[in-house]
This record gives sequence, structure tokens and C-alpha cells, in this order.
Amino acid sequence: MLIIHADDIGVAHSENSATFKAMQTGVVNSGSVMVPCPWFAEVVSYAKENPQADLGLHLTLTSEWKQYKWGPVTSSAAVPGLINKNGFFYTSADSVVMFASAAEVEQEIRNQVIKAKQMGLDPTHLDAHMGTAFSSPGFLKAYIKVGKEFNLPVMLSRQLESMFGIKLDSQINPSTFLIDNIIMATPNDFKNTMKNYYTSVLNGLKPGLSCLLIHLAYDNDEMKAVTINHPEYGSAWRQEDFDFFTSDACRDLLKKNNIVLITWREIRDKLYRSGQ
Amino acid sequence: MLIIHADDIGVAHSENSATFKAMQTGVVNSGSVMVPCPWFAEVVSYAKENPQADLGLHLTLTSEWKQYKWGPVTSSAAVPGLINKNGFFYTSADSVVMFASAAEVEQEIRNQVIKAKQMGLDPTHLDAHMGTAFSSPGFLKAYIKVGKEFNLPVMLSRQLESMFGIKLDSQINPSTFLIDNIIMATPNDFKNTMKNYYTSVLNGLKPGLSCLLIHLAYDNDEMKAVTINHPEYGSAWRQEDFDFFTSDACRDLLKKNNIVLITWREIRDKLYRSGQ
Repeated sequence: MLIIHADDIGVAHSENSATFKAMQTGVVNSGSVMVPCPWFAEVVSYAKENPQADLGLHLTLTSEWKQYKWGPVTSSAAVPGLINKNGFFYTSADSVVMFASAAEVEQEIRNQVIKAKQMGLDPTHLDAHMGTAFSSPGFLKAYIKVGKEFNLPVMLSRQLESMFGIKLDSQINPSTFLIDNIIMATPNDFKNTMKNYYTSVLNGLKPGLSCLLIHLAYDNDEMKAVTINHPEYGSAWRQEDFDFFTSDACRDLLKKNNIVLITWREIRDKLYRSGQ
Repeated sequence: MLIIHADDIGVAHSENSATFKAMQTGVVNSGSVMVPCPWFAEVVSYAKENPQADLGLHLTLTSEWKQYKWGPVTSSAAVPGLINKNGFFYTSADSVVMFASAAEVEQEIRNQVIKAKQMGLDPTHLDAHMGTAFSSPGFLKAYIKVGKEFNLPVMLSRQLESMFGIKLDSQINPSTFLIDNIIMATPNDFKNTMKNYYTSVLNGLKPGLSCLLIHLAYDNDEMKAVTINHPEYGSAWRQEDFDFFTSDACRDLLKKNNIVLITWREIRDKLYRSGQ
């Protein structure tokens, strides 16, 4: 079982338009949205026009690009630990762990959910941009807590323990929903072309529920400028993701390997809305 | 004497790249920048690499596009009258006049100047996006006050009195610097092509100091999405501005009409930095 999940929706118009196209014509069946980003309102319009689209929130605590910036949705005076001297989020998860309190993180991610719902997007799940919202035990606790508060599944997996040096057991119970495998390309995979990487992923998928995290955008002027001086997760990388997940080759691989696509909406509705 | 002035720098990458190109290869010799907008940091990089560029601040109190939004640089809790329920600036100057106090406007525009300087842009002048910062007597007072505080000329003209229903005399003194003519295309001019409009402007320029307000961007995917459902000041309009002010025809008209180009930097340095 596989969720083909587009991250970073809302970051730029290029990201939005490529992701929407891949959801409508390709096999991308889920994604998550960055509420604090400038193009969030465009995603809300899309969600209203496409109420079955599987859109969660990519809880955002960083502003990582060089010349294109954003900050918290919470009043900045209330979350001083989340912002740098220019009022933007920090560029790295490490800085957020160093300077922000778990209380600030909790307040900001709660406000992102509230703002999304208020603007008209009913999210299907929560996950964390750059893993920041689970990069310390205190942040992880806030992330799980806010998910429960809004009856939303949060992306969690045993893999996060080694990736972020956190322990899940003290924070979850036996019925907590876990993803078996989170899969995402690395810079080395990009060097060998995304087509090769994803082909090998789809041919070698393990049993259980996997979530494949991808990033879709067009390699155009806007996206080149957003990701300037940053080939990793850059504009060309995102175009390759788009090309693969809208290709017939990808469709054929899913079929050949009997991969069943499932969505976060199905998971949410099963866990929290059964009977509706 | 003429200032050929590009408004709205910082609003989008398309606006930035077209404006910088027209400053470097065309006759555009001045412009002003929107500090709260997502692409402001790109303008700061440009200003650092081009320290002679004539860049003022286009003080911004509105977020007028449908699917692409921003809000104040001031902590939102401190300026509740400047923001709508989603935390963005209002879309129109009228709403700002209705809901914001002059004290909030003063605080926000001061913070925009402080943020620009802190990030490394030394502005040459101040003016007002959509005229909002001079659309009420109280706002106008704040605008003039902040200019004086930072020793920056502010764009003022007798024309503003009829355009915005304000009175200048109680707020200025005989030595206050005024622009004789502020010129900007209307939707009707756009219908008759920008080339015709600007040709007629340059052939009919009155004596004195004129400031021609233009808006430069490429008519590309990003700018079409920014200005969606809004042909006035839209993407095609901005492309026509770019095309004209980078054309040989424009250069020839300036020469033929003996138009002398001057910059806000020259005005600022004469008024406030003589002897430096």
C-alpha cells in the first residue's frame, strides 16, 4: 500500500500548479500544504473547487530559501523564539530546536491548523516540513497533541527515531497509527536521475504501508529563483519528480507491482470519522 | 525633468527580474520596494550588488491580489486594525482607512523602514503603494513624520489633494519638496496600448519635475497567477510597460523632447545629505 505524497504545496505558484496537474493527470494521490507561505490562498481555492483532493498540512517552522521568505502565522510577539532578527522563520530545523520552545511550536502549529480551517481547507492529516515539528521530544509531543485536538492523523514512523534521535514509545500507545516506510530521495539519488530512483523504489516496495514523499514543481523562472544556489530539492529536481509521476512508465510500474494506492483521507475517516 | 519610477518591486520574482533588467538595459532610473512582500529579500541582494540603484520604499498597507497574500512586518497583535481575519492586509485602501488607526499606520511604516535598513537596503525615498499611506489626513501625517525621522524625501504632490481628498497646507511648509506632476496610466490608457500612452506622455511632458509611475513584470506563469482575474495592473499590462521602457523608441522620445532624467537619490542627497 502506498501514499504518493507531494510535499511543499503552497510554497510557490510553480509548486502549486505542477502538483495540481500531477494530482489530476498523474498518480499523485495526496499532499500537504504550507500554511504560512505566500501562495497558500491559491491552494485554498483549489481545495474548494476540488473537495475530494487529499490535502493535509505540512506544518512549517522554517523558511529555508535565500531570497524568498515567510514567517509564522502567529503574532510574532507571541513566538519570538521562532523568528530571526528580520522576522522570518529560521532556515534550519537545528536553529528552531536551539531557539524555540515547545510551547511556541505548539502554538504556531495549532494556529496553522486553525487558519487553514478558517480559510476553508479541511485538512486530511498533519506532517512536518523538513521534519522540524518532530525534531525534538518536546516538539514531537506538541505535534501529536495538536493532531489529537483536531482529530487528524499525524505522520509518524519508527524511522523517525533514528532520523531525529527521538523516542516514540513514551508518546504513543499501541493503537497509534504508524507508517511502515517513509521513502524520500536523497541528493545521491538525484545524481543518478529520479527516474532510476523511483523505478527502483516501486520495484522494491516492502509490504505494509509506505509513504513516498515527493516534491513537484516546474523548472521555470519562479522556481529557479526560489531554489537559487540550492540544487538539492531544487527546481530541476522537482521537475524530474513531476515528469516521473505524470508518466506512463510510472503507471505501468504501479500496475506491474500490484501497488495499492491509499490516501490520508481514507486513513483519517477510518480513524476519526467512521460512521459519517 | 523626469523620474521614470518602477513601483511594486519585491511583489514577485517576475516583477523583480523585469525591473532590474529595465534598470540595467532600459531607461528606468528609479523604483520603490514593498518590504512586507515575499520577494523583498531578493531586492536586498540586488541592492547590495548594485549600491547605486535608486531604490526607495513603496510603503505597503494592502495585499490586493486574490491568491497570493502578505501581511504587516509589525507583530500582528500590535496592529490589529491593519489585518483581516486571516492575518493579511486588507485588499483596498478604503478598508485600511475604515479599520486602521493612524498610530497603527505610523508604527507599520516605521517598521518597514527599519526592516529595510536592517536587512541592508538604504532607501532613497518613500512613497505609498496604492496611495494608502496618504489616503487620510492622519495617515498622511504619519507618512510625512516617518520621512522626516529617517531624513528621506517622501513623494508628495498637489495632485494628491484632489485624488485622495486631503489638504497638504496644514502638514507641509514652504520648503517641503513637491513633485509637480505625478503621471500613471489608467485602464483606458491600457486599452489604447501602453506604447501610445507613453509616447503621448513623453511628447507632452509639462515643465517642472514629473514622476512617471510604471509597473514592470514579465507576462509569465507567476505574474499571470499573481494578477489572476485582474487585467488592470495585470500581467500583460506590466509586460507592455517593460517592453516600452526597454525600447529604442522610448530612448529616442526622451532625446527628442530634451527630457532630463533625475533620481530620488539626487533629491535625497541634495535635501538631506549635502556635504557628504
